[in-house]
Amino acid sequence: LRPRGKVLPEYARAHNRALVLQTLYDAERLSRADLARETGLTRVTISDLVAELISDGLVAVRGHREGSRPGKPAVMLEIDATAHQVIGLDLSEPDRFRGAILDLHGVILHTDQVPLNGSTGDDALAKAVELLDLLRQRTTRPVLGVGVGSPGIVDLAGIVLSAPNLRWTDLPLQQVLEYSSGLPVQVANDANTAALAEHTFGDGFGDVMLVKIGRGVGAGLLIDGVPLFGSRFAAGEIGHVVVDAEGGAPCACGKSGCLETWMSVPSLRAALAEADAAFAEAAAEADAEADAAPSDRDRRRVAVLRAAGEHLGIALAPVVGALNLSEVVLSGPSELLDGPLLDAVIRTVRARTMAEFHGELTVRMATNPDDVVLRGASVLVLADQLGVS
Amino acid sequence: LRPRGKVLPEYARAHNRALVLQTLYDAERLSRADLARETGLTRVTISDLVAELISDGLVAVRGHREGSRPGKPAVMLEIDATAHQVIGLDLSEPDRFRGAILDLHGVILHTDQVPLNGSTGDDALAKAVELLDLLRQRTTRPVLGVGVGSPGIVDLAGIVLSAPNLRWTDLPLQQVLEYSSGLPVQVANDANTAALAEHTFGDGFGDVMLVKIGRGVGAGLLIDGVPLFGSRFAAGEIGHVVVDAEGGAPCACGKSGCLETWMSVPSLRAALAEADAAFAEAAAEADAEADAAPSDRDRRRVAVLRAAGEHLGIALAPVVGALNLSEVVLSGPSELLDGPLLDAVIRTVRARTMAEFHGELTVRMATNPDDVVLRGASVLVLADQLGVS
Repeated sequence: LRPRGKVLPEYARAHNRALVLQTLYDAERLSRADLARETGLTRVTISDLVAELISDGLVAVRGHREGSRPGKPAVMLEIDATAHQVIGLDLSEPDRFRGAILDLHGVILHTDQVPLNGSTGDDALAKAVELLDLLRQRTTRPVLGVGVGSPGIVDLAGIVLSAPNLRWTDLPLQQVLEYSSGLPVQVANDANTAALAEHTFGDGFGDVMLVKIGRGVGAGLLIDGVPLFGSRFAAGEIGHVVVDAEGGAPCACGKSGCLETWMSVPSLRAALAEADAAFAEAAAEADAEADAAPSDRDRRRVAVLRAAGEHLGIALAPVVGALNLSEVVLSGPSELLDGPLLDAVIRTVRARTMAEFHGELTVRMATNPDDVVLRGASVLVLADQLGVS
Repeated sequence: LRPRGKVLPEYARAHNRALVLQTLYDAERLSRADLARETGLTRVTISDLVAELISDGLVAVRGHREGSRPGKPAVMLEIDATAHQVIGLDLSEPDRFRGAILDLHGVILHTDQVPLNGSTGDDALAKAVELLDLLRQRTTRPVLGVGVGSPGIVDLAGIVLSAPNLRWTDLPLQQVLEYSSGLPVQVANDANTAALAEHTFGDGFGDVMLVKIGRGVGAGLLIDGVPLFGSRFAAGEIGHVVVDAEGGAPCACGKSGCLETWMSVPSLRAALAEADAAFAEAAAEADAEADAAPSDRDRRRVAVLRAAGEHLGIALAPVVGALNLSEVVLSGPSELLDGPLLDAVIRTVRARTMAEFHGELTVRMATNPDDVVLRGASVLVLADQLGVS
């Protein structure tokens, strides 16, 4: 590992504090002796750090170890998930901005939303400020910070470099929201935010790619738990990768056969509507001949979903191969994704990569697609304020 | 960033020592005051560390700063690249194992080789041991360590999990070579090793994907300068990603249209030979009609190379898109790769990704394809023994 900077005593203390919090997050309940053993820190250091964390309201005493050996039973500690709150914003939905108040375990305590009514630019920004203000008034505990999942390309300073649907260019979203709320704010791309939620609250660990299917198609990548940003903060922008140069439909970007022409929610809905129309026409003709086939409608819909899944699989196979990914997660409308489409993705990726390397590859739906950005936004705050993930 | 373990005083010292070495590697020549400024460490700490590094023979005094202001001119320090040597082995070539003695700047001082004569398994292992022994006898300075680029899947302990061409399975190569030589040994996949060389000695920085084209096709990936291994140490194994499910040739792996059927050196040579034969046949016919076209041979060869490049581009586009890569480097026979094939890769990747994100993408040949694994092997040793990259 390449050294990045000097190690200072204050850094060491912050590092050790984060290490204790991380260990408590992972293990749920531990004694001071457990913590010393797990972290390798001395008991004196642990006692000192734990006292500080209890006084900060981040760690709480929760009884004694059950079934302890004779003698003084060990005092058990855990994260005090409810003494602080976190605000999460999801700016990636088509028609509204949605926000939540969460506890430190990412449990949603309250949600609010502001309809967009087609707002873009400064109007859309004003609605984000409004939503954050609404939520801040509803918090009932000290607020650790605000996490925001934004569409588009977001740099490390929380500047939205480009979010075409909201017509945001070089918008210092993090700064604006910090100024308006007086709270620390972290902004990241919505798919990256969602990937953080799956990594932190799901069963997965290590490398994960989350593909978020909505108005467009984007992905969030975590390598060994760390978000990947790319050379120009555009990692995961796979929506305009061409998957079918010859047979593809024209795309808004000017190319043909982009992944979005197959996989965005509007593209999927349009293709299904077309299949339904073709069925209706065929049924009308068949009726005339008294030879209707009602299951034919489903068959046509399944063919549409399968073709879309195959094209997503074609785009994913080289990425799965190059990164030797263990987990791909799809997030978006379950009624479209969870079924023939997901099956086709799995089949296509398996058929196009080496089974011996990727036999354990998991391709699955996100655990809670609707809230995944909000919960990931809370992880941004935990990482920024407490150094845990 | 997630904390990985406690910060100990010894760790801090090793970290600071590596930081001083890294700073000297990057800057070439610095005074003690420069080092203090660049690293943020105190002058006392710097003096202490520099004294230790000079006594270890890793840093040397090289005169005084030219054109200094009046007063005592600053003593200049640099890496003492020639006081130690490093041994590198490249086990990835088809017919031989090749090795080199290098200085600490990755300059090759001496090379040796052992012909394989079709050896596999323990016989091939014995030849690697023999080559290392040969090289060790030729070293003229204390040896810092041995770096090895091996084909196949290599885990973090230097065990070759699978290298089909050498018939190696779960071979503890690092351990065997350490035992036989008495030197510290680091083993990594050949493409990863080559990527390290390009990153360390080339102009590139940040993320890089090196595609190594030989008997097979494999890639090495560095994300922010750190090698990516994947969930089962098989990151970069893109040779058996299917790029043409319908039109592809059958592959040894059982699938059809794998990237290797287009891009491996044997596949390229076979396709060129076929094009030459087709030309000869056409020329014979044309001769009969007194209508020969000599440039037609070149045209056929260019078409073969272009088609191969296009298929590599098809495989790379989703990876470039997902990772927002800034640099792709090809390593292999220049007479095959550097020309219409490279041009077709660039054109295809550009046509299949978003220009606004990837406009600055560089696709180029490796700076010194023949020695890239040997030089990368020396980087493995520098990283392991000195903490620099």
